Amino acid sequence: MRALVTGAEGFAGRHLVRHLLECGDEVAGVGLHVAPEFLDLGRGVFTFHELDICDNAACARVISEFKPEVIYHLAAVAFVPEAESDFDRVLRINVGGTNNIARVCHLLQSGVTLLYVSSAEVYGCFSPEHLPLTEEAPLRPVNNYSLSKLMGELVVDRYARGGYMRAVVVRPFNHIGPGQDVRFVVSSFAEQLARVAKGKAQPLLRVGNLEAQRDFSDVRDIVRGYRLAALKGDGVYNLCSGRPVSIRAVLDMLIEIAGLKVAVEREPGRMRPVDIPVMYGSCEKAQRELGWKAARDLRDTLAEIYREKCRELGTLR
Amino acid sequence: MRALVTGAEGFAGRHLVRHLLECGDEVAGVGLHVAPEFLDLGRGVFTFHELDICDNAACARVISEFKPEVIYHLAAVAFVPEAESDFDRVLRINVGGTNNIARVCHLLQSGVTLLYVSSAEVYGCFSPEHLPLTEEAPLRPVNNYSLSKLMGELVVDRYARGGYMRAVVVRPFNHIGPGQDVRFVVSSFAEQLARVAKGKAQPLLRVGNLEAQRDFSDVRDIVRGYRLAALKGDGVYNLCSGRPVSIRAVLDMLIEIAGLKVAVEREPGRMRPVDIPVMYGSCEKAQRELGWKAARDLRDTLAEIYREKCRELGTLR
Repeated sequence: MRALVTGAEGFAGRHLVRHLLECGDEVAGVGLHVAPEFLDLGRGVFTFHELDICDNAACARVISEFKPEVIYHLAAVAFVPEAESDFDRVLRINVGGTNNIARVCHLLQSGVTLLYVSSAEVYGCFSPEHLPLTEEAPLRPVNNYSLSKLMGELVVDRYARGGYMRAVVVRPFNHIGPGQDVRFVVSSFAEQLARVAKGKAQPLLRVGNLEAQRDFSDVRDIVRGYRLAALKGDGVYNLCSGRPVSIRAVLDMLIEIAGLKVAVEREPGRMRPVDIPVMYGSCEKAQRELGWKAARDLRDTLAEIYREKCRELGTLR
Repeated sequence: MRALVTGAEGFAGRHLVRHLLECGDEVAGVGLHVAPEFLDLGRGVFTFHELDICDNAACARVISEFKPEVIYHLAAVAFVPEAESDFDRVLRINVGGTNNIARVCHLLQSGVTLLYVSSAEVYGCFSPEHLPLTEEAPLRPVNNYSLSKLMGELVVDRYARGGYMRAVVVRPFNHIGPGQDVRFVVSSFAEQLARVAKGKAQPLLRVGNLEAQRDFSDVRDIVRGYRLAALKGDGVYNLCSGRPVSIRAVLDMLIEIAGLKVAVEREPGRMRPVDIPVMYGSCEKAQRELGWKAARDLRDTLAEIYREKCRELGTLR
């Protein structure tokens, strides 16, 4: 299977590339800059193309040359506060970039499958009676990031109606794993703990809202879902564990894994302006139609993230 | 009532400014350049501010200085084929511009009413069983313009949820009247006929798809609806006549009004790629909640448009 991955150098992108190669796919990654780990990959099965997703002509050239059977479109501004600070940029990259990719798929008339990575954030400001969130829940995005992800769904849907391509949309809930940016909560906790373990920081953790409950999956489960959705899916799929876990519970597990005694301090700057108290999804559709289910244990994933942070700091405990 | 109008120099904008002034409102128009007819308006009740809707700081400055009670947000790329040629520009102006205005309304916390002019185009690719289109019909935009108008609705909705402003959305169907750009079908027919009448052209009209049926209203009925929606509305309102008229019937009326014998030639370049055969709306909600109904006779409006085109060509018949 010839697969093209946009945002290949991002967190989920790198895991997806690895998974596709393991499945025997021939992969072209596109992104702003090549990830160092890509340099070790076999030349025959993996190529990387430096490309700005906003560059329409470059997108068209790479896609028409590589002739993918599936395009996994992940490239996006993915950090909510970063998106919040510049709507025009988010429009250009997340919406305009999606338009570039979807339009090329349409114009090529090659029957390519476009797997669009949306986000559970599109459910936005839902009512508690909609929990667990199914794909039918109302869509009420309340920040720039979630708006842009829903706008991307509209763009993909528009071109899919043309009949020359297949489009599948996935809405992943929170996903974590090795290699995630420390701006994201779990990675931030793990790094702070690793610094304490190495004696590089006081035993004090700075945290945001610990009461919020979210639906966490391992990024490797999530990217496995991307491939299944691309191959067998039709429509929109939630990808999630189906159960809410509080940020506090995640923190407690990480502290236990680290075996440290630390104080915890709330920092107002880490609170999101519109924070939804409890959010979790139903992955019943993905289970039924794709045979997908989140398989990895949360605790194992957390332990792996912590070990990675320690390794990065040169402390193997 | 202090009213600010974006896109004031546009087709609907000019009619809206006139209507608001007739209602006794104090009006600030903003737009890229002042319309010549604005120069005659009384200084005390009307001011014009040259402003690019994409300029966030300029939007914030004008709005916070003028302190409007209602903002009518009309500024947009409004011609479908123009929007089709440059998605990034449409994103920047139609979606980013709406974000600038809505965000200022939210941040000011002044309880201002934002009247967002969306479009019936957001219904897009509907099924015949949805006719006449109510506000509850599915939204399946199939071109850049309609996508951008729906994205603008999402942006407005996002900020309205913040609770610091009121937002009302109108979805006007086709509207016509004096002063419309000749890229739009009725204005184009009228101008071609006026040129024939003046002996400036052969008696041959170039037309697109004559079989398409659309829901036409007079622009003055439509802008009257904008004000009623802003003052009394809640949610989304279709503004339309409620009955479909074929483009052929419009053309026949115009030819009869002109009293000319002309040949008609179809021109493929004037056909839209995705043309919906029959489209008309239900304005039942606007009628019930706003007491609004399209009042002007189509034939009278067409006659007025034709007379204007003749005047512009120096031929008063």
